[in-house]
Amino acid sequence: MQTFSYLCAQFMNTLGKYFRFTSFGESHGLAIGGVLDGVPAGIDINFAMIRKALDRRAGRTTGDDVNEKARGVSPRAMHEPDEVEWLSGIVDGKTLGTPIAFLIRNHDARSEDYEWLKHSYRLGHADFTYQQKYGIRDHRGGGRASARETASRVVAGTIAKQILEKENIHIHAELIQIGSETNPEKFTTYLSTIQQEGDSIGGIVQCKIIGLPVGVGEPIFDKLQSHLAFAMMSINACKGFDYGSGFEHVDKRGSEMFLSDDQQLVTGGIAGGITDGTPIVFRCVFKPTPSNKHTLGHLIHTTNHSVSEPKRARMDACVAVRAVPVVEAMAALVIADLKEYNREV
Amino acid sequence: MQTFSYLCAQFMNTLGKYFRFTSFGESHGLAIGGVLDGVPAGIDINFAMIRKALDRRAGRTTGDDVNEKARGVSPRAMHEPDEVEWLSGIVDGKTLGTPIAFLIRNHDARSEDYEWLKHSYRLGHADFTYQQKYGIRDHRGGGRASARETASRVVAGTIAKQILEKENIHIHAELIQIGSETNPEKFTTYLSTIQQEGDSIGGIVQCKIIGLPVGVGEPIFDKLQSHLAFAMMSINACKGFDYGSGFEHVDKRGSEMFLSDDQQLVTGGIAGGITDGTPIVFRCVFKPTPSNKHTLGHLIHTTNHSVSEPKRARMDACVAVRAVPVVEAMAALVIADLKEYNREV
Amino acid sequence: MQTFSYLCAQFMNTLGKYFRFTSFGESHGLAIGGVLDGVPAGIDINFAMIRKALDRRAGRTTGDDVNEKARGVSPRAMHEPDEVEWLSGIVDGKTLGTPIAFLIRNHDARSEDYEWLKHSYRLGHADFTYQQKYGIRDHRGGGRASARETASRVVAGTIAKQILEKENIHIHAELIQIGSETNPEKFTTYLSTIQQEGDSIGGIVQCKIIGLPVGVGEPIFDKLQSHLAFAMMSINACKGFDYGSGFEHVDKRGSEMFLSDDQQLVTGGIAGGITDGTPIVFRCVFKPTPSNKHTLGHLIHTTNHSVSEPKRARMDACVAVRAVPVVEAMAALVIADLKEYNREV
Amino acid sequence: MQTFSYLCAQFMNTLGKYFRFTSFGESHGLAIGGVLDGVPAGIDINFAMIRKALDRRAGRTTGDDVNEKARGVSPRAMHEPDEVEWLSGIVDGKTLGTPIAFLIRNHDARSEDYEWLKHSYRLGHADFTYQQKYGIRDHRGGGRASARETASRVVAGTIAKQILEKENIHIHAELIQIGSETNPEKFTTYLSTIQQEGDSIGGIVQCKIIGLPVGVGEPIFDKLQSHLAFAMMSINACKGFDYGSGFEHVDKRGSEMFLSDDQQLVTGGIAGGITDGTPIVFRCVFKPTPSNKHTLGHLIHTTNHSVSEPKRARMDACVAVRAVPVVEAMAALVIADLKEYNREV
Repeated sequence: MQTFSYLCAQFMNTLGKYFRFTSFGESHGLAIGGVLDGVPAGIDINFAMIRKALDRRAGRTTGDDVNEKARGVSPRAMHEPDEVEWLSGIVDGKTLGTPIAFLIRNHDARSEDYEWLKHSYRLGHADFTYQQKYGIRDHRGGGRASARETASRVVAGTIAKQILEKENIHIHAELIQIGSETNPEKFTTYLSTIQQEGDSIGGIVQCKIIGLPVGVGEPIFDKLQSHLAFAMMSINACKGFDYGSGFEHVDKRGSEMFLSDDQQLVTGGIAGGITDGTPIVFRCVFKPTPSNKHTLGHLIHTTNHSVSEPKRARMDACVAVRAVPVVEAMAALVIADLKEYNREV
Repeated sequence: MQTFSYLCAQFMNTLGKYFRFTSFGESHGLAIGGVLDGVPAGIDINFAMIRKALDRRAGRTTGDDVNEKARGVSPRAMHEPDEVEWLSGIVDGKTLGTPIAFLIRNHDARSEDYEWLKHSYRLGHADFTYQQKYGIRDHRGGGRASARETASRVVAGTIAKQILEKENIHIHAELIQIGSETNPEKFTTYLSTIQQEGDSIGGIVQCKIIGLPVGVGEPIFDKLQSHLAFAMMSINACKGFDYGSGFEHVDKRGSEMFLSDDQQLVTGGIAGGITDGTPIVFRCVFKPTPSNKHTLGHLIHTTNHSVSEPKRARMDACVAVRAVPVVEAMAALVIADLKEYNREV
Repeated sequence: MQTFSYLCAQFMNTLGKYFRFTSFGESHGLAIGGVLDGVPAGIDINFAMIRKALDRRAGRTTGDDVNEKARGVSPRAMHEPDEVEWLSGIVDGKTLGTPIAFLIRNHDARSEDYEWLKHSYRLGHADFTYQQKYGIRDHRGGGRASARETASRVVAGTIAKQILEKENIHIHAELIQIGSETNPEKFTTYLSTIQQEGDSIGGIVQCKIIGLPVGVGEPIFDKLQSHLAFAMMSINACKGFDYGSGFEHVDKRGSEMFLSDDQQLVTGGIAGGITDGTPIVFRCVFKPTPSNKHTLGHLIHTTNHSVSEPKRARMDACVAVRAVPVVEAMAALVIADLKEYNREV
Repeated sequence: MQTFSYLCAQFMNTLGKYFRFTSFGESHGLAIGGVLDGVPAGIDINFAMIRKALDRRAGRTTGDDVNEKARGVSPRAMHEPDEVEWLSGIVDGKTLGTPIAFLIRNHDARSEDYEWLKHSYRLGHADFTYQQKYGIRDHRGGGRASARETASRVVAGTIAKQILEKENIHIHAELIQIGSETNPEKFTTYLSTIQQEGDSIGGIVQCKIIGLPVGVGEPIFDKLQSHLAFAMMSINACKGFDYGSGFEHVDKRGSEMFLSDDQQLVTGGIAGGITDGTPIVFRCVFKPTPSNKHTLGHLIHTTNHSVSEPKRARMDACVAVRAVPVVEAMAALVIADLKEYNREV
C-alpha cells in the first residue's frame, strides 16, 4: 500500500455549535480534559453526578448490575481515580456563563508497557492511520485515539445532562444485546464465558430520550437523527446507528408498519428531522475490542524494528458495557446543543 | 399531546465546511435549487453526468436495471423534466471558484391535489412536526420536507463526484436488500408483487468509496464515519447507518473477526476516524413509504376541518430504489468536504 | 513579483451563524442573488421597503437628498431595474421559516465594454488578485468582485431590518463626511465639483443602531464590535471601522474622556463586547473609486496582449454615497444574527 | 434604564475555523488558558519565544525600549510569573497535530482588593453589561473581561507566529502614536507626564505582515481585512481598525491617491479581500484605560450596598503599549487560519 503523510492536518476536537465541547489530551500525556462553552450562567453543578458517571465509564461502579458483573474491564480503568480539576467558569459551584475548563491528570499511565508499540502498529486500532496522517504519534496506549478520551466527554456530557434534567428531559442508555444474547438476565454469565476464553464480543446499546418537546431538530441538514448519528459514530468502536424501525424492521411492509399500534417504534420520536413529542429511541452497535488473548501478537505489524511482544493486553471483554455512560453523555451534548436552536414564543 | 410552536426557528440548510452546499426550495413553490460554495476554479462541468444522475433519482432511467424494473416510482417523478438553470459560478462550462447557484423549476406541481392536506396531517410524514415547529407550513406535497429536495442534492453531489473522479476517487452505491430479499436477481419480481398489492417495503443501500488515500477524516469529532452518518441520516426515510462489521456482525467474537482474512469487512476502510487506504463500505436502511394503498385514509389526522380523502397516493413501492443516487451524491459531498481538511506535503 | 495560483480556493460567501446570508452571482453573469436562512416563520415581508432600499443603493432615489444630489452614480446603476425574483421560503407574502432564495437578473450588462479587461488588470481593483488566486476570472465588470453584488446584500439586509423593526430596533446610516467636508449642507456642491473634474473622493458613513436591549454581543471573540467591523470591512471600498471614541479621540486623556457628560460618545453603546442599552454608533471610511477620468489608462497593466483603452469609466464620484444603504443592510444582518445568540428568560 | 437578564447566554470563546483557538479562564480564578486546535504535526515549539512575548505583554521586558520606558504598567502584570503549563498536544517539544492545551495559574490574584466591586460597577468597564447579561459575574478584577485573558492569546498567537515564520511570513507591530504624539522619540517623556499626572491616554498600534503570498483571503465575506478587523476589535480597549489609506486619507482625491508612487500605502496590500503580494499594513486605536487617579470614585455606581472606595487603581498609563504583542498574536492567529483556506498546486 502506498502511503503518504500530511504536513498540516486539521484536527477538529470541538462538538456542537451553541453548546460546544472541546476535548484535549493524550492517554499518557500530562492530562486529558476539555472546555465546555455556551453553558448557561447560574447553574448549580452537581459534582457527585459527574463522579458517578465517571465511575460507570471506568467500570468502577459497584451498584450498577451490568458493570459490576462485567469483570473484564481493563486494570487501568479500575484504578485511575479520574479526579476532575476545575479550572474556570464555575464560582461557588455555580456556572458563570463563561467557558468551563477542566482537566483529569493521567496517573496510572505505565508508559513503559507501550515501548514495543513505538515501532509497530496494532491492527484494528488507529496506530497506522494516525502515523500516516500526521507523520508522528504518541504511541503510548493509543495516545489521542485511546478510549480514555471519553472520560472528558462524560464530564461535559453530564453537565449537559444536568441542565436537561432541570427541564425534565431525561436520557437513559442501556445494554440490550451482547453478541447474540438479548436477554439481560443472561448477560453476566455470557460475559464471564467470553472473558474466561480471553476473547471479546460486540454489543448493542439502546438509548431513550424522554421529555423533549415537539420541535427540536432542524429540517434538511440539521435533523436530530443526523446529529445523534454524528455524535454516536464518534465513540470509539461504534460501527452503526439506527433509530425507530432501523435495520431490524427492513422486512416489514408499509401496511404492517404504519398501521401497527406501536407508532413510536416506527418513528423513534422523530419526523422530518424534528421531534414529535414522543420519546426518542436509538441504538448503537459496538464491535469487540481487537486486543484480546487470541489476537495478541497476530495484530502487530512491525516496521523496521524488532519488537518484544507484549505479554498481556489491557482489554474489556465487551466495550459496549462501558460505552453506556458515553452514549448518554454524547446524547446529552447533542440535545443541549440542538435545543438552543429553538426559541419559544 | 401538548404542543407549542416556535417564533424563531433556525433552519440550517447548509452542509459542509469547505465544500458547502446550501439547499433551498419547497416541493410546490416556484423552484428548488442550491448554492455550491468552495468548488475549485477551472473545473470543466460535465452536465450530461448531472442529467443522468437526476434521471436516476427520478426513476426515469431506462438503462439502469434496478430502476427500470422498479416501476412503482411516483408519476410526478417520471414526468418532471428537472431542467437545471445555472445562475452563477460557471463561465463557458468552467467553474470560476465563485458560488455555483442553480435552480430547478417546479412544473408538474398539481398543488390542487394537496388541498385536503391543508388542514390535516399524514402520519409518518413531517406535516405535524413542521406545523408545530413553525406555526406555518407549505402543505402542498410536503413542502420543504418533500423528497423532491433531494434533486438539488443530486446536482451538487454530482459536481462533487466529478471533482473526486479527477483524483480517481469513485463512489458507487447499490441496492443490496429489499424487504427480506437479498438476492438482486429477485428484486424485480419482489417489487412487482409489493406494487401490485399497493403496499410499500423497506430496503438497504450499500455504498463503496474507492481510491481514497490514507489519512482522510479527522480524529475525535470529525471522524469520517461521523460525517458519512450525518449526511446519510439526512436523506428522507433513512433510519440507520453502519459501516464495516456494523450491526450484522454483532455476534462475532473478536478472535473470529480480527483474525479473519477479510479485514476490510471488519474495518470498512476506517480506523480511528481516518481512512486506511482500503475501500470504504457503508450501508443505509430506508423505511417503506408510509403512503400506500393500505394506509390511505388511515394516516390522516384532521384538525378542525372536514377533509375530502385523497383517492390516490403518489408513492414508490420502495423508496430505497431512488435513494441510490442520493446516497452517492451525499457521500460525494462529504468526501469533497473532508478532503479539503487535508493538505499534502 | 512572483505569483502562484491555487488549485482549490475556498470561497466563503455566507455571513452569519444563525441568521445566515449566502450570496452568489457575477456582475455580468445570468443573475446575482442569495439565500437567507434562519428567518423566523410567519413574518410578513414588506416588498416595497426592499424596493426602496435597492433604489437607494442604485442611486435611483429621487426623494433622498444626498443621493439625489450625488449625480455621479454610474449609468448602469441608474438603469438596471433590479427586479427581485423570489424563489422559495415565502408563501402569500409570509415567511415559512425555510430558506428564502431570490435572484436579480443582470440586464444592462454590456459585457462588450469589458473586452479590453480580459487581458489586463485595473490597479485598485481586484482583477489581479482574483486572477492570481483562481487562475481564472469573469473579467466582465469585475465579475464577482463588482459592487453590484451588494444589491443582494441590500435585499437580505432589508429583510433583517424589517424583523428588527418589529422589535423596535432601528438602524440608520448617513454620510457624515466627503473628503474634508463635514458639513452636509455643502455636500452637493462639493460632489458636483469633484464630478465635473472627473475625479473621485473618499467619504465617511456613520451608523446608529437604536433600541437594542442590554446584553447583545458575546465576550471575548464574538464581541458586537468585532462582528460589526467584520461585516463593514467586507463592503467594497471600505478601508476602516471605528466606534465610540474611535480614531478621532486618540488624543483625549482618560480623565477628560470618562468624566465627560457624553459617556455615550466614549462607549459607542458597547462595554466588553456587549450592548449597554444606549445607542450603538460606528463609522466606516470609504476610499475613492480608483476608476476616474484622471486614472483611465494609467491603471491598466496589460499582460501579453494589446489592449484598446477604454474611452470612459462607469464611476461614482463618491462611492460612500451609495454605500449608505449597504452599511444599514450589513448592520441589520449582524444584529439579526447576534440577537439569536441570546434567549430571554 | 430598564434591564433584563438572560437565562442562557452563548459565550463563544473560540477564534478561527481551521487553526482554532479556544480561550478560557477568569482573571482571579484558578487559571486562564486555552486549547489550540489545527496546529500541524511535527512542529518544534520555541518556548523561549513564547516566554518573551508573555513578558512583553506584561510589561516585564527590559530590552524593549517602549515597554521599558512605559513604567505605568499595573503592579500585577509586573509580578505575575505567567508560567505556562502544557497539558497536551506536544511530546518532546514537538507538536502531535492533536489539540495543544495549556494553562497559566493565577498567582498574584489579591481577590480581596476587589471586594468593593461585588456590589458596584465601574463605568468604562464591562461590570455592568456582564452582570446584566448573565445575572452573575466573577467580580474579582473584571473576571472574564479582564485583559489578563490576553496572555492566553499571546501564547496561542506566538505558536501561530512560529509556524508562519517557518514560511518566511513575519508580523511586526509597533506603537506609532500616543495621544497626539506621533514621534516615537518623545514617547517616553510623554508617558511619564501622563503617569505622573495619574492620568491615562489612548494610542495607535500599527502592524505590518510581510511575506504573504498573493491569494490569501477570501472574496465577499471572508476578506482578509474583515478577519483582521474582527480579531483586532476583540482586543480589550480597541476602538477602531483601518488598513491602507484608512481614515487618515479620506480627504485625498482618487487622482492623487491612485497615481501616487506609493500604491502600497493606498491598498495596504489587499485588493478585493485578497493579498496582492505586498506587505499588509493596518492600524488599531486603543482608548485610555478608564481607571485612573482622576476617575477613581467617580466611575463607581453602587447598587444597594455601601462600598468602601478603593484607594488605588491597578492601571496602565497607556494600554496601547502592552497591546502591541497582543496585536501581533491576534494577527498571527488570523493569518494561520486563513492560510489554511488555500491549497497550492
